[in-house]
Amino acid sequence: MINVGIIGAGRIGQVHMKSIMTGVPQAKVLAVADPYMKPEVAAWLENAGVEKITKDYREILDDPRIDAVLICASTDQHAPLSIEAIRAGKHVFCEKPVDHSLERIEEVKAALEASPKKIKYQVGFNRRFDHNYRAIRKAVEDGKIGKVEFIRISSRDPEPPSPAYVAVSGGIFLDMMIHDLDMLRYLSGDEVEEVTAYGANLVDPEIGKAGDVDTVVISAKLKSGALAAIDGCRKAVYGYDQRGEVFGSKGCITSSNDAANNTVLSTADGIISEKPLWFFLERYMGAYQEEIRSFIDCIVNDTEPEAGIEAGLISVKLAIACKKSMDEHRAVRIDEIK
Amino acid sequence: MINVGIIGAGRIGQVHMKSIMTGVPQAKVLAVADPYMKPEVAAWLENAGVEKITKDYREILDDPRIDAVLICASTDQHAPLSIEAIRAGKHVFCEKPVDHSLERIEEVKAALEASPKKIKYQVGFNRRFDHNYRAIRKAVEDGKIGKVEFIRISSRDPEPPSPAYVAVSGGIFLDMMIHDLDMLRYLSGDEVEEVTAYGANLVDPEIGKAGDVDTVVISAKLKSGALAAIDGCRKAVYGYDQRGEVFGSKGCITSSNDAANNTVLSTADGIISEKPLWFFLERYMGAYQEEIRSFIDCIVNDTEPEAGIEAGLISVKLAIACKKSMDEHRAVRIDEIK
Amino acid sequence: MINVGIIGAGRIGQVHMKSIMTGVPQAKVLAVADPYMKPEVAAWLENAGVEKITKDYREILDDPRIDAVLICASTDQHAPLSIEAIRAGKHVFCEKPVDHSLERIEEVKAALEASPKKIKYQVGFNRRFDHNYRAIRKAVEDGKIGKVEFIRISSRDPEPPSPAYVAVSGGIFLDMMIHDLDMLRYLSGDEVEEVTAYGANLVDPEIGKAGDVDTVVISAKLKSGALAAIDGCRKAVYGYDQRGEVFGSKGCITSSNDAANNTVLSTADGIISEKPLWFFLERYMGAYQEEIRSFIDCIVNDTEPEAGIEAGLISVKLAIACKKSMDEHRAVRIDEIK
Amino acid sequence: MINVGIIGAGRIGQVHMKSIMTGVPQAKVLAVADPYMKPEVAAWLENAGVEKITKDYREILDDPRIDAVLICASTDQHAPLSIEAIRAGKHVFCEKPVDHSLERIEEVKAALEASPKKIKYQVGFNRRFDHNYRAIRKAVEDGKIGKVEFIRISSRDPEPPSPAYVAVSGGIFLDMMIHDLDMLRYLSGDEVEEVTAYGANLVDPEIGKAGDVDTVVISAKLKSGALAAIDGCRKAVYGYDQRGEVFGSKGCITSSNDAANNTVLSTADGIISEKPLWFFLERYMGAYQEEIRSFIDCIVNDTEPEAGIEAGLISVKLAIACKKSMDEHRAVRIDEIK
Repeated sequence: MINVGIIGAGRIGQVHMKSIMTGVPQAKVLAVADPYMKPEVAAWLENAGVEKITKDYREILDDPRIDAVLICASTDQHAPLSIEAIRAGKHVFCEKPVDHSLERIEEVKAALEASPKKIKYQVGFNRRFDHNYRAIRKAVEDGKIGKVEFIRISSRDPEPPSPAYVAVSGGIFLDMMIHDLDMLRYLSGDEVEEVTAYGANLVDPEIGKAGDVDTVVISAKLKSGALAAIDGCRKAVYGYDQRGEVFGSKGCITSSNDAANNTVLSTADGIISEKPLWFFLERYMGAYQEEIRSFIDCIVNDTEPEAGIEAGLISVKLAIACKKSMDEHRAVRIDEIK
Repeated sequence: MINVGIIGAGRIGQVHMKSIMTGVPQAKVLAVADPYMKPEVAAWLENAGVEKITKDYREILDDPRIDAVLICASTDQHAPLSIEAIRAGKHVFCEKPVDHSLERIEEVKAALEASPKKIKYQVGFNRRFDHNYRAIRKAVEDGKIGKVEFIRISSRDPEPPSPAYVAVSGGIFLDMMIHDLDMLRYLSGDEVEEVTAYGANLVDPEIGKAGDVDTVVISAKLKSGALAAIDGCRKAVYGYDQRGEVFGSKGCITSSNDAANNTVLSTADGIISEKPLWFFLERYMGAYQEEIRSFIDCIVNDTEPEAGIEAGLISVKLAIACKKSMDEHRAVRIDEIK
Repeated sequence: MINVGIIGAGRIGQVHMKSIMTGVPQAKVLAVADPYMKPEVAAWLENAGVEKITKDYREILDDPRIDAVLICASTDQHAPLSIEAIRAGKHVFCEKPVDHSLERIEEVKAALEASPKKIKYQVGFNRRFDHNYRAIRKAVEDGKIGKVEFIRISSRDPEPPSPAYVAVSGGIFLDMMIHDLDMLRYLSGDEVEEVTAYGANLVDPEIGKAGDVDTVVISAKLKSGALAAIDGCRKAVYGYDQRGEVFGSKGCITSSNDAANNTVLSTADGIISEKPLWFFLERYMGAYQEEIRSFIDCIVNDTEPEAGIEAGLISVKLAIACKKSMDEHRAVRIDEIK
Repeated sequence: MINVGIIGAGRIGQVHMKSIMTGVPQAKVLAVADPYMKPEVAAWLENAGVEKITKDYREILDDPRIDAVLICASTDQHAPLSIEAIRAGKHVFCEKPVDHSLERIEEVKAALEASPKKIKYQVGFNRRFDHNYRAIRKAVEDGKIGKVEFIRISSRDPEPPSPAYVAVSGGIFLDMMIHDLDMLRYLSGDEVEEVTAYGANLVDPEIGKAGDVDTVVISAKLKSGALAAIDGCRKAVYGYDQRGEVFGSKGCITSSNDAANNTVLSTADGIISEKPLWFFLERYMGAYQEEIRSFIDCIVNDTEPEAGIEAGLISVKLAIACKKSMDEHRAVRIDEIK
């Protein structure tokens, strides 16, 4: 039995809590820390048998019974909490991105390398655990499509975040497209060599005023020579649009969106099927559960996490390169980004 | 908090146990009874915090703390256990069918009517809680397709049961098609007036030797005048095929199968998508959880179960009428069946 | 070059005229006869190079240059014109049904047998030449689905005919379902042994007053033991609904409707695709061309038409058996129908 | 009646000949010229009633009865023949591209402007007449998706041309992607401001030796601010992959491929549907007919061709800009291309 502490009891912290309760029998949440915990959340945790409910995350790091911590605090806390947790000898699951700054991610990496204990460190790239993306990945790995020649990812949120959020988000590449940049590596099994990005402010002028764009297209060249295109938008009125495609010498595999049900209504107005599941909590609920199950499995079976500190580091490099390409209006090689 | 006892710790009893553990926070399984409980099941239940693990279901019925029982024993035990549980003042969730004999179902009904306490009695027609069938039902109720004119249900299992099972199953109509006959009522919101059934032994000669058929088509006339067709087969090599369609004056709503993922692989051999989920445990896992959640809600909020003793009784009448039609080679009115 | 005469210059006669002009280079329409030919049709035919445009079909039958006639007159004229044409030594393509009376079809058959010249006689079962139905048939023939166990056909017109037409149509089974009954034989490659039919008057009370029904379901048992279900309706508000399915020991093949284009529109209201092509002229235009091309090929290459007098005869028997089953409220064996 | 002369009796010239014969009643092919005409083609044309079959295109341009010419010769002949035909006062339908050189297209444009007679000049961008692309365009024009924000086009041929063809093709952008670049303008109703292109030689090393690439991705910024991505490949083993998508503030419209039929085969190996139609002659046969019908309509009704000399000019500019971007490894503004 792996004893878990959760730092941060907001939306995503609660999701992980539920995943462990309902789907990870080898783990038990012993403690949850959040300085601003809502009373109803505290009540729910207590009722669910969480032993220690606290404002102070140090009570988790100092508890020798706790094997692993889930870092679900705000992004600026990810790196320092990671480092503290690593130094406390805890296995760490950290929400993405590890940080907006490469230097700070390198510090986490250094802490991992310096740790006398072999720490499992997993970054919250939930899409790697999604049924559709995993099926694409498996088909690619199994050689079903031959040599990879082109990868396409479409990624559209149903509604934009508030301008206030946008202002502190690090920008669309670090905040939103980072998932898709990680998917590009995951689906292709390859590394990105160069990117070119275009951005536009089409959805909401407030996003532009906050210094960001809301619609982007990224084209990329991978190490193997394969090409790629990613398009992203902060708002798709029909719901969360999450599709991938990998094309190769022997075929092509494509995923379409998931809907709440598989019914089709035929009327005089047209043939109407269900819209995609609304947003990430609906769409990726299974993936959230699966990533935590996988993290605990890594600890139990002493295997490597699927998305470790390197994935966390490279994805941020890619996002920074995209931003640089858009700003400087030129192709940017990833090895330019230090 | 509703305290629950489960009678029968086989496959379906375990499914309901898990549903309550992971998805029904208002209920708690206090006791599980099974005279032939496997040691590993007992260990799992104990670990999950089940207080009383016993061979004797009477320990459940006699426990005044227990509010509701789930009857997951073999079919021949459904009716007598239902009656005992009702007399003990417990709310009852009973797996389908309540019994193969109308008389014995009537006895359960009489027990319910005689009970001084208002008992909630729900029959395990899980498909009423399936996302696809519910979406069809909702569209019909919302008038999206106008007046119902025709209903079609296709129901194919991926693999036939053993001839030994077939011999005691009550026959394909009572064992398998009963779900689809209940769906006919559920999707249409109407009652069946008359049925004609054809059966054939095409899948496995052993099923024929056991006195049963494995492939059937049922046509029906409903009270409203609408017509219906149901086809069933014990074996579809591509997996569990579960589709419904309701056609009416303003349109048509159709459900297709669920698959493990929404990917499509295009190769020189064709455009290939995933097969349906393999069988009922995969396909209806969500529905199993939902039916138990709904049962507990009925108790908590004092509402009527969606599928009560009447649904249990009528579905058996319909199955008997189908059998009679096939055997006597003629249309059979449901009011012939007493 | 096969010289063709067309008897009847209504809608379907014009369709066949166009098919020959644009897609059957081995044939040439030499003459068209219609006692009520519209002036604009006559002008079009003249412009298209038709040599003889006449009120009197005898001018076609008497013309020794003419090899083949297409009988596109009203149904009551099909049999007598067929016999006259056969006696005149012409190959005959006759619109369906050959007649509503078995006796008169037998007379046509007798004329064919009595003819000193080997006459090619094809009945206008256009769906046998449709790309979707042909693909199903081919998969069945190629053994892709193994031994046939169940066939389903859904057949819904977009709008009902006028009550005046219904009154002289011979009823829904002979007028509309005859196509589907022929499809049942074509798709299965089997013969029907017994049918049970239900009918209802749900679409338009005027159809009921004209003595007909507008919604039917037919269940059937085939010689091989396979079962079948056909549903039909005179009105589907979303357009012409024409789907088939053959299920067997190794799989299942299903056809869906054709639409004017393959686009999907995703909006806040839902995911909307195109409705089926509106009616038979849109849906089966390719099949109409293909059946004439095939008829001419039979003459040129001296092969047997795919749908000859026997198909014409059996389909009428099946329609009569369905009507009898509905009227007498019982299963009807096809060998009862003489 | 519009009298037509066809210059070039190769594959595409024959396609246009058939379109006029079978689907454009207002036009008649009076003459066909080709210095290398195959005897069987000449025989077919003669049989089809073409009056003048010649080696010398001047016999067409000099014939005062001829209203319009279709230029189906090799690409290097497009511009000079266009200019001669314009000077001869003929309406011109010219296969794409008008030329690989902007100067020569400008010369054609100048000839058009200098012509005393108002000449209809249409470039063979057949996809503008395809049912799927037209449906997308119409949805965009009708405001169904709101303001355009992103366009995506996937364009993959089933098999690469020979290296010999590649060597004289002008390169993938001018030879193949020019269609997609034109589609970008057509679907969006907008102009391209800037492109960035990546190319790779992944399909066939011989193509690389011939100095070309076979796999490309183009990203673009449009005048309105909308973004776009086009991917292209010379070889998709599953057939001709031609899909478009336009995303906007109110929704998204997507087209999928056409197949030979709409059947789905379900077996133990998977759920298998038909591959896309093999290549452009199968996929765009309807569009080829429609473009000629539309060209003749423009002459008859004195309206503007949908794709005139300007579309021909701009598409070549776009292709040149893509090539320049790939070669110089930078974003290229279209107004750089003179």
